[in-house]
Amino acid sequence: MHTAPTQNMADMARARERGAVDPAKLQAFIWGGQREWEAKQRIVSLLSNDPVFDKARRPFLTRTELYQRALAMTKRLYELKDEHGMSTTDVAAAVQLIAEPLPMVLHDAAFEPIVRSQGSPELKKEFQDLIVNRGILGCYLQTELGHGTNVAALETTATYIPESREFEIHSPTLTSSKWWVGGLGKTATHGVVQARLIMPDGKDMGPHLFFVQLRSLEDHRVMPGITIGDIGPKAMAGYAAVDNGYARFDHVRVPLKYMLSAFAAVTPDGRYVQPPHAKLSYAGMLYIRSTMVTTGGWAIAKGATIAIRYATVRRQGSKGADGLERQVITYPSVHYRLLPALARAYVFILLGRNLSKAFSAMSARLAAGDTSLLAEMHATTSGLKVLVTTTAIEDLETARRSMGGHGFSEFAGVGRIYADYLPAATYEGDNYVLDQQVVRAALKAYDGLVVRRTRAITDVTPSTSYLQHLVDRETISSSPRTPGSWEDPKASIVMLEKRAAAMVAERARHLHDPDAGSDHRVARAVTDAFVAAQVGEIIDSLSDTVGAQEATVLRKLYLLHLLTAVEHGLVDILSFGLLPRSEGRADPARDLRMAIDRLCAEILPEAIRLTDGFGFVDWELDSALGRYDGNAYEELWKRTQLEPLNKSEVADGYEDYIKPLLVRGHRLAGRPKL
Amino acid sequence: MHTAPTQNMADMARARERGAVDPAKLQAFIWGGQREWEAKQRIVSLLSNDPVFDKARRPFLTRTELYQRALAMTKRLYELKDEHGMSTTDVAAAVQLIAEPLPMVLHDAAFEPIVRSQGSPELKKEFQDLIVNRGILGCYLQTELGHGTNVAALETTATYIPESREFEIHSPTLTSSKWWVGGLGKTATHGVVQARLIMPDGKDMGPHLFFVQLRSLEDHRVMPGITIGDIGPKAMAGYAAVDNGYARFDHVRVPLKYMLSAFAAVTPDGRYVQPPHAKLSYAGMLYIRSTMVTTGGWAIAKGATIAIRYATVRRQGSKGADGLERQVITYPSVHYRLLPALARAYVFILLGRNLSKAFSAMSARLAAGDTSLLAEMHATTSGLKVLVTTTAIEDLETARRSMGGHGFSEFAGVGRIYADYLPAATYEGDNYVLDQQVVRAALKAYDGLVVRRTRAITDVTPSTSYLQHLVDRETISSSPRTPGSWEDPKASIVMLEKRAAAMVAERARHLHDPDAGSDHRVARAVTDAFVAAQVGEIIDSLSDTVGAQEATVLRKLYLLHLLTAVEHGLVDILSFGLLPRSEGRADPARDLRMAIDRLCAEILPEAIRLTDGFGFVDWELDSALGRYDGNAYEELWKRTQLEPLNKSEVADGYEDYIKPLLVRGHRLAGRPKL
Repeated sequence: MHTAPTQNMADMARARERGAVDPAKLQAFIWGGQREWEAKQRIVSLLSNDPVFDKARRPFLTRTELYQRALAMTKRLYELKDEHGMSTTDVAAAVQLIAEPLPMVLHDAAFEPIVRSQGSPELKKEFQDLIVNRGILGCYLQTELGHGTNVAALETTATYIPESREFEIHSPTLTSSKWWVGGLGKTATHGVVQARLIMPDGKDMGPHLFFVQLRSLEDHRVMPGITIGDIGPKAMAGYAAVDNGYARFDHVRVPLKYMLSAFAAVTPDGRYVQPPHAKLSYAGMLYIRSTMVTTGGWAIAKGATIAIRYATVRRQGSKGADGLERQVITYPSVHYRLLPALARAYVFILLGRNLSKAFSAMSARLAAGDTSLLAEMHATTSGLKVLVTTTAIEDLETARRSMGGHGFSEFAGVGRIYADYLPAATYEGDNYVLDQQVVRAALKAYDGLVVRRTRAITDVTPSTSYLQHLVDRETISSSPRTPGSWEDPKASIVMLEKRAAAMVAERARHLHDPDAGSDHRVARAVTDAFVAAQVGEIIDSLSDTVGAQEATVLRKLYLLHLLTAVEHGLVDILSFGLLPRSEGRADPARDLRMAIDRLCAEILPEAIRLTDGFGFVDWELDSALGRYDGNAYEELWKRTQLEPLNKSEVADGYEDYIKPLLVRGHRLAGRPKL
Repeated sequence: MHTAPTQNMADMARARERGAVDPAKLQAFIWGGQREWEAKQRIVSLLSNDPVFDKARRPFLTRTELYQRALAMTKRLYELKDEHGMSTTDVAAAVQLIAEPLPMVLHDAAFEPIVRSQGSPELKKEFQDLIVNRGILGCYLQTELGHGTNVAALETTATYIPESREFEIHSPTLTSSKWWVGGLGKTATHGVVQARLIMPDGKDMGPHLFFVQLRSLEDHRVMPGITIGDIGPKAMAGYAAVDNGYARFDHVRVPLKYMLSAFAAVTPDGRYVQPPHAKLSYAGMLYIRSTMVTTGGWAIAKGATIAIRYATVRRQGSKGADGLERQVITYPSVHYRLLPALARAYVFILLGRNLSKAFSAMSARLAAGDTSLLAEMHATTSGLKVLVTTTAIEDLETARRSMGGHGFSEFAGVGRIYADYLPAATYEGDNYVLDQQVVRAALKAYDGLVVRRTRAITDVTPSTSYLQHLVDRETISSSPRTPGSWEDPKASIVMLEKRAAAMVAERARHLHDPDAGSDHRVARAVTDAFVAAQVGEIIDSLSDTVGAQEATVLRKLYLLHLLTAVEHGLVDILSFGLLPRSEGRADPARDLRMAIDRLCAEILPEAIRLTDGFGFVDWELDSALGRYDGNAYEELWKRTQLEPLNKSEVADGYEDYIKPLLVRGHRLAGRPKL
């Protein structure tokens, strides 16, 4: 009777056989080396074989249960660390591989690095080793109920009291309540609070950071003068296990040394000491944004893997030579949506790694007092954060929707990834605000390099190199095009750079009267150009990093990214006449689209092996439809049997609600009493 | 201390004062008449004042609890019907106004109409009045685990046994399990099963419909030979209260009269009687699709109302003349995204009503055996279903994201609407499949009207009138344009019609080698053109249906829809040279975008009153951020206090998980034992 599972698994096996690339080589490539890939496997093996990290009951748990499960995983992780001698890097990798938002994530991502980089020596002496060893658990209290984006307007105050050498942290209004703080609601014992520093003379010095104890280390009760709670469930059941919290402070005193004073300090007698490099305090935020490129890439990788695997075993529609319906992945309308997502995963994961290296280089220079790379890093990470989060959200929904009805099942797995990923569009800088910062940087570079020529064109940085096309402002021109020319990555890279250049020039022309959507379009164009150039470099270096077979396929995959980026930018490209009109009324974009279709058809036989290249085990994807072996239908059936509603044959509400309804209906229909 | 609530409410009151349109007139307009609007108010008043329909605990309930709550609401609804003498129309309206997916929705939308329109007289005699009075509860079993879109390949069989004059319903495989069936899991007592009719000689007649009893009316236990269960949770916690179910049939016998035989029958001795109008069986599906236009419009209306209200009271960023930060709605980057959504709500709600009228007209003709309107209705509803569901999903996410961090709170309300609305992109015809049907109809019309001229151009229907631009195939031309010309709705309508015509002609040119995305783009262009023409008619009739003041504002709102539809179609419009290039490298789309910005600025003072025009009470929106009085922050705080995690000061997991972690950390840091 169960013929479908056999067919599902046969389809997957055949798809896997058909490919030529070696997943092992791809895995080493995408994980940044054989050693990194092996470390990943070791960690996943530890986690996936431990019942604490089992995911089977997750879809049926309440928030309270999910929160406790997250705590149990956190505790178990540190037990594993101790048992297996895992390094700090291993633990960080494990948190990424668990890939569920955990209450402690902000301790690692914000609390610990901020105290390390900005705490005074006295503060660090008292707390640093406790923080490192999780002897205290921290959070980062920035956003308030009334203010997020506009940090300068935060209402929480920290007033210095010279008499007792203390700061008084206070929440003067309802809207000054700290809000959304991850780990604050029920977990954190301490926190770093962003508050406006008020000097003894009443002068407002703007937002600064203060270390505050939130809960007793004796019994975990909330410290006097502080009100703390969880802010409630999140949309679409996202981030359910995290206790995003609120906090209000009623004249809470902390000692002078609790001010994070690396970049700004108050002397005991109440003088404000100017920060030498105020900008340095942004470095932490840039770091978080830079890691979001990698994270976004992995989110897309999961969605694309699940959807491509399911489309490989799902058969629907017209029958082929084998008498079976076609595999859904063979429809161009399906694979032309999924393969570009696959390509973007390969792009963003590598880009993220390059960015981490660039960040390390910048940090080394910063440590030596050299801030010259900071502006470039700021522009790059702002643009990439918007591009990657926006694209990842779209790709996840594309993947989910490509799976038809079953894509709406929780067991498909993509909806959960989407719901947990969604806030990335807002946190660490709302995307619409970051767009403006990208545009500001672009206009500044344009002004210096092109208009006023105060900088030599050889001064272009990776984020401004597209401006080379404006050295002679009349040189932006369309290139004559033959149907084959899209096969050269350069064609797409130049096209995307010219588009960025033309749009920045147009934006400069309308400096004070841009249309409402222009910042978003310009920022996208500038970032697309940056990414395209980076992808060009990745393509050039492929033959050194993977085998010849893999290099050939990856080159196509990266080219697919470039071509679909051009297609995405067609409105601008056509607006500025960068793509020559064909004769007659024919569509000048047809060559491009046909090139995309051809490329997809060439990549298609390698699709399953390319998804294998990410190296996911089934525990990581936790998807009935995206199983490695393709056994989708049987797995879906199996998971369904765990649904609590299926515990009893007759639902609990029958006597109370259904039966009275049926009795009424029989009465009204004049039928015998039930 | 609570100054923010005062400010919130003052901002909302001021925004309301500033507008000129009369919400009461808009409400009568959007509800289709004063009587309809008053009926809606009566029903909402009944529901919102009844504790059974209270929504306060909803965010914290498990699926099992949500299911029982939905049953309780269903039972209570029929009690209210009896108590208040509500009509069937009132009850249907109440179900819409409850606006939560309920287990019984498919009884109303599919089971009842299908039995009514296709059941044999004998079947109806036995069950019709029970169905009408909910003495039995039904569902509609079409989709299977292995097949959705391709109905012809469904695997469930119904084999006729002439000896006993019965059909034997059977699920031969795992993949033939009926799946996703709303109300099947725990609720329905009966169902209509789609199964391939197998004649006694083994001949397969393809899918037909059969009435089947699923559960005992005595004790609600599942009937012998049938296996039934709930398919588990849905993505993003959507549709949580509905028991979408699966069912497998093991040689289950039903009598001959249980075949729904209005369009196809089997004689007692086992002969198949051909259906006279096979197409008639599609009418029900067209009806459901046509109602989805209205539903999508109301979903957008809710999202836009919540987001516009919150953006009115949220202040962030630079300070204005009043010394306060700017209201977020005043930023062009915010309102140019929200006002077009508001416009689309006003478009789709009216379009849906027009479509219902057209559907009634068609049904009257169908009853007289005239199928001439069926093809037109099919093409129109397919295209609109795709356009409306795609757009509504985008608009809901745009609304959610415009609210920044708080938009990700469950209490914002938009995430829940999104999760419940999302499957509309897939059910009742996957959008990607419907695209093809729209294109097929368009190519057929193009062939008849333009290429072979077998039909006179005066034969154009509303869905093909854009083809008039191809009567002389060389006449599609760009129109010289002055900055003011976008103010005339005709300019946009003609532009969208020309775009559709050019794209259909291009699609015909590449009949056998379209690019992979072309069906989607062509279907969108054709539907945009249809909607634009309809909007033109709505604009023309405004002065008859609302006051002069309201007509002026609504005209702007409808024009905004047209302009943003043109902007959305710019790639095609530019590809086919329909928008003349400006001189130099200037962006030819700038005029259009500036016209959109100007129009948004003109509509802005009326935005709050336009949202009031939908007539929502707070109970309907159930949003902390979208309250009528603007008291967003205080409401958010209030709802947070209901979160179960906040019941105790110290979380339940403290002793088991947090404390051991802290103890370990203190030990490793060499600190005194906690």
